[in-house]
Amino acid sequence: MALAETTGTVAAVITRSSTTDPFLAACRSQPARHRPVWFMRQAGRSLPEYRALRGNGTILDAVRRPEVAAELTLQPVRRYGVDAAILFSDIVVPVAAVGFGVDIQPGVGPVVERPFAGRDDLRRLRAIEPDNDIPWVAETVRILVKELKVPLIGFAGGPFTVASYLIEGRHSQDYARTKRLMYTDPATFADLLDRLADLAISSLRAQVRAGAQAVQLFDSWVGCLAPGDYRRYVLPATAKVFAAVSDENVPRIHFGVGTGELLGLMAEAGADVVGVDWRVPLDKARRRIGPGCALQGNMDPAVCLAPWEVVAQRARTLLAAAGAGPGHIFNLGHGVLPDTHPDTLARLVDFVHAEGDRPEP
Amino acid sequence: MALAETTGTVAAVITRSSTTDPFLAACRSQPARHRPVWFMRQAGRSLPEYRALRGNGTILDAVRRPEVAAELTLQPVRRYGVDAAILFSDIVVPVAAVGFGVDIQPGVGPVVERPFAGRDDLRRLRAIEPDNDIPWVAETVRILVKELKVPLIGFAGGPFTVASYLIEGRHSQDYARTKRLMYTDPATFADLLDRLADLAISSLRAQVRAGAQAVQLFDSWVGCLAPGDYRRYVLPATAKVFAAVSDENVPRIHFGVGTGELLGLMAEAGADVVGVDWRVPLDKARRRIGPGCALQGNMDPAVCLAPWEVVAQRARTLLAAAGAGPGHIFNLGHGVLPDTHPDTLARLVDFVHAEGDRPEP
Repeated sequence: MALAETTGTVAAVITRSSTTDPFLAACRSQPARHRPVWFMRQAGRSLPEYRALRGNGTILDAVRRPEVAAELTLQPVRRYGVDAAILFSDIVVPVAAVGFGVDIQPGVGPVVERPFAGRDDLRRLRAIEPDNDIPWVAETVRILVKELKVPLIGFAGGPFTVASYLIEGRHSQDYARTKRLMYTDPATFADLLDRLADLAISSLRAQVRAGAQAVQLFDSWVGCLAPGDYRRYVLPATAKVFAAVSDENVPRIHFGVGTGELLGLMAEAGADVVGVDWRVPLDKARRRIGPGCALQGNMDPAVCLAPWEVVAQRARTLLAAAGAGPGHIFNLGHGVLPDTHPDTLARLVDFVHAEGDRPEP
Repeated sequence: MALAETTGTVAAVITRSSTTDPFLAACRSQPARHRPVWFMRQAGRSLPEYRALRGNGTILDAVRRPEVAAELTLQPVRRYGVDAAILFSDIVVPVAAVGFGVDIQPGVGPVVERPFAGRDDLRRLRAIEPDNDIPWVAETVRILVKELKVPLIGFAGGPFTVASYLIEGRHSQDYARTKRLMYTDPATFADLLDRLADLAISSLRAQVRAGAQAVQLFDSWVGCLAPGDYRRYVLPATAKVFAAVSDENVPRIHFGVGTGELLGLMAEAGADVVGVDWRVPLDKARRRIGPGCALQGNMDPAVCLAPWEVVAQRARTLLAAAGAGPGHIFNLGHGVLPDTHPDTLARLVDFVHAEGDRPEP
């Protein structure tokens, strides 16, 4: 029972040790009884029950209310029959919790009151104490592991992506301020990413110890970097996160958008699964990543706005590119778009479960 | 003198036939006496003389005034000593000129009053008559070819990118409306792209016949598409543009951002030169594109915000990846960022001219 003593929950151990779970097996590149599928941002504005429960409250308000966050997490699992749940939270939760001054504005995303401008701002990023600073996270996870029949994915923002919000003040088109700091003051940039890596580690550990059975690092915007810059400025902090959580013995998923040239490096950073966006066919992604690492993805979310025949045709092509072997988790290449009809996603889950291991040549 | 009769200007013939011009030679994958360099958006807000001349007027106002547009085109050529000028204009000029109702708002970009919503809106895109609808374009070109000692690049927007503005109403994060139309009503989408191809062809022909010596098709946002979708929905219209302007006997450059997986298809569409963004090292881009097509690019524009040592190091790495053979035009991987110091670009031009054909291994 050494593991149970480490994690503190028996339930987590029972489910975590289950190698027959399709999602966890695929994460480990092991055969699964069916092709697992879940959708990034499956808990989101495409669901009427989500919009009803969220109402006009902010995302951070909902995250801080365990019963609400748990229900938002459960809604898509009930409706779609997906093979994994993902905690309802946000990548800026840790930096907001240590008082950096981050809000999430509707239709805008994270907005930082006083952006990170230089070395002096490092002091605004103290270490996080999850039990004190974000107790609602573990509480939400504990509610969920009692309710869920499928694994719960915990997550954190990748150090580069969170840094980009802190430096730019909001989502950026060109990441000019972020890259300027990176090139001009690489020591401060490295220290910033290192602190954000520590925040991610603490947050992910808290989620896993409360019962999350896999973790995903969303480095959503890291695809704006050339491979040489990724290796030099970002990979060390990301590798630190994955190395630290390797003790927790849960699969580690690594995802970013537009990362076609970074896929090999993202695996090298220590991921068990690399998420691929829709730009790179999965057979090409497999060649770039090499063996031993599972793939997650990669339908263009906009395909789910199309008539069903188009969705089915694209899903078939995707499954053929993924191949019949183990180590593929069906997902979109980025989050569900708000205008997606929930019935399309429900039908897509059934389709993947039925066709997933009989891909056409 | 058959060519002179076709183009209507002797000056154009004299310069166009010059194979000793470094830029034109590189576009043809022929040896050049030095590595040519120019910068996308070299005429832009990074230049104080640009800001002074533009003042508070709109871009479309400046485009419509030949003396102003010519001066804005010349400013970076004088200051930097680049090997090519690019006409000061905008990719929405033709659709605005046929009355689609497009404005360019400061800090926002193109904004469409009544976005394209379906087949009925095709009638709002009549054919353009350059002599009547955009006479200032040819007039600006005629002023420029008298002044310039380097080739002038004419340009148009790629059908997909212009369509995305017409459909979304402004720059989009996810191109959801554009892709929804593409998947849901592919016939209308194809007709829209075909009309936009015709507008691009007429506009490019007018520029070349007035004296432009190369053309660039900016399909800036086409990198949002999976390769299969690009081939099916976009390539036919793009290939039509390149085939039509092949009669004009000028090099054809094709550029988009985030197009790592599309590079081969972009060459296949009929380009003599493919522009590459900074995400794909040029040696990889070369392998994807194959022989016979020149490359243009590809420094991250944000590198130009860095101290000179970083810029020089990145330029050396870039030149090494490009290789010592012919067929490379040095450029950024996207437009000059507004905060770029002009002295950095001037120094970079000198550096490329000095080092361009002695890349380190």
